[in-house]
Amino acid sequence: MSDSHQNGVKEKPLYEPSILHDIDFEGNHCSTYNPEISHTNPGEGLLMRPLCREDYDNGYIQLLSQLTTVGDISREEFDARYRSMDDCLDSYYITVIEDTSTGQVIASGTLVKEQKFIHKCSARGRIEDIVVDDKYRGRQLGKLILDVLTILSKKVGCYKVSLECLDKLVPFYSQFGYKTEDKQNYMCRRYND
Amino acid sequence: MSDSHQNGVKEKPLYEPSILHDIDFEGNHCSTYNPEISHTNPGEGLLMRPLCREDYDNGYIQLLSQLTTVGDISREEFDARYRSMDDCLDSYYITVIEDTSTGQVIASGTLVKEQKFIHKCSARGRIEDIVVDDKYRGRQLGKLILDVLTILSKKVGCYKVSLECLDKLVPFYSQFGYKTEDKQNYMCRRYND
Repeated sequence: MSDSHQNGVKEKPLYEPSILHDIDFEGNHCSTYNPEISHTNPGEGLLMRPLCREDYDNGYIQLLSQLTTVGDISREEFDARYRSMDDCLDSYYITVIEDTSTGQVIASGTLVKEQKFIHKCSARGRIEDIVVDDKYRGRQLGKLILDVLTILSKKVGCYKVSLECLDKLVPFYSQFGYKTEDKQNYMCRRYND
Repeated sequence: MSDSHQNGVKEKPLYEPSILHDIDFEGNHCSTYNPEISHTNPGEGLLMRPLCREDYDNGYIQLLSQLTTVGDISREEFDARYRSMDDCLDSYYITVIEDTSTGQVIASGTLVKEQKFIHKCSARGRIEDIVVDDKYRGRQLGKLILDVLTILSKKVGCYKVSLECLDKLVPFYSQFGYKTEDKQNYMCRRYND
C-alpha cells in the first residue's frame, strides 16, 4: 500500500504511473515554457499524475463541469465508469494535475488509445477533454498536459494522434505538431444536444 | 457450440450478435435503398454479422488492405489484437458482411465506443475503417454498414457519433445525419507516414 502512494499517487491509478514519469520530455516536446515547467515539476505545489479512483472526492467532476455538461454523478456511477475504463487495458490515459496544498484536481486531459488492425495492428491516439480550472489559468498547464499526452501517445504505440478544436485554437494546437489536414473533414451526429 | 453458429455467426464474435439483429432499422435510418436491403438481408448470399476470430482465414486482413496499409499480420498477432479488443467490453463493434457462397468477408466497418465521464458518464461513438471489396461495389453495402453502425451507436448509449472523411465524401455522409460542424477543426499529428 505504501508503494502505491509513492510520488503522490493515490489508490488505484487509471494507468501505471511510471509510464508518465518515464516519458522523455526533453527530446520530444514542441513547446517552450517560460518559466520552465515539466511533467515532473508542473509548478510549485503542483503534481501531475494519472487519474485515481479517489479523485471523485478531489473535485474531478466539478473540474469537468468547467468544460461541458457533466450532471450529477454518484460515487457508484463514478466507480462503475472508472472500473470499466480500467478494465480496458492500456486504453484510457486520463492525466490530472493536483494542487498538493488542497488535494484538489485542478487540470485534466485524456489520451484514448484506440486499437486497430490496420498499420500492422497499430493504434490511434485521441486527445480529449482538456480542462484547466479557471483559477489556475495562465500557468501553462493546458500546454503542459497537451505536450505530455502527445508524447505519451507515441510512447504507447500510436501511429497517429488527433484532436478536434475550434478555429480559434488551431494556432494553439499547431505548436504541438498538430496540423489541419487538407480536404479532411470532421463530421458529427448528435443525439441529445 | 451449435448455439454460437446460429445466424451464420462463427466462433467468438467480437460482440453479441443479438445487438446487431435487435436494432430497429426501420425507425431510424436516414438512407433509402433501391433495391431494398437491410442488416438482416443485405443482399442475396450476403450476411451481416460481427467480426469473428476466425475471419483471419476469411480474407479480413486482405479486405482492410484495400483501405490502407495493413502489412503482414501473423495469426498470433491477429489473435492477440482481437483478444485485447474483446477484453475492452462494449468498445469495439466491428461489423462485417460475408459472402456466404465463399465464406469471405467482403465489407467491414468499425464503431468504437469511447467511454466518458462527461454527460453523466456517457460515451462517444466513432465510425472507423469502412471498406467494401472492389468486386462488391455498387450494391449499397457501404451505405448499409454506415446506417447500421450509426443506429448501433445510439443503441449502445453514445450521446454523439463522429467520423472523419475527405471533402468529396461530405455529401455521402450527410445522408446519414452527419454534419460538418461550424468552426470545428480536426487536427492530426502523424508519427510514421
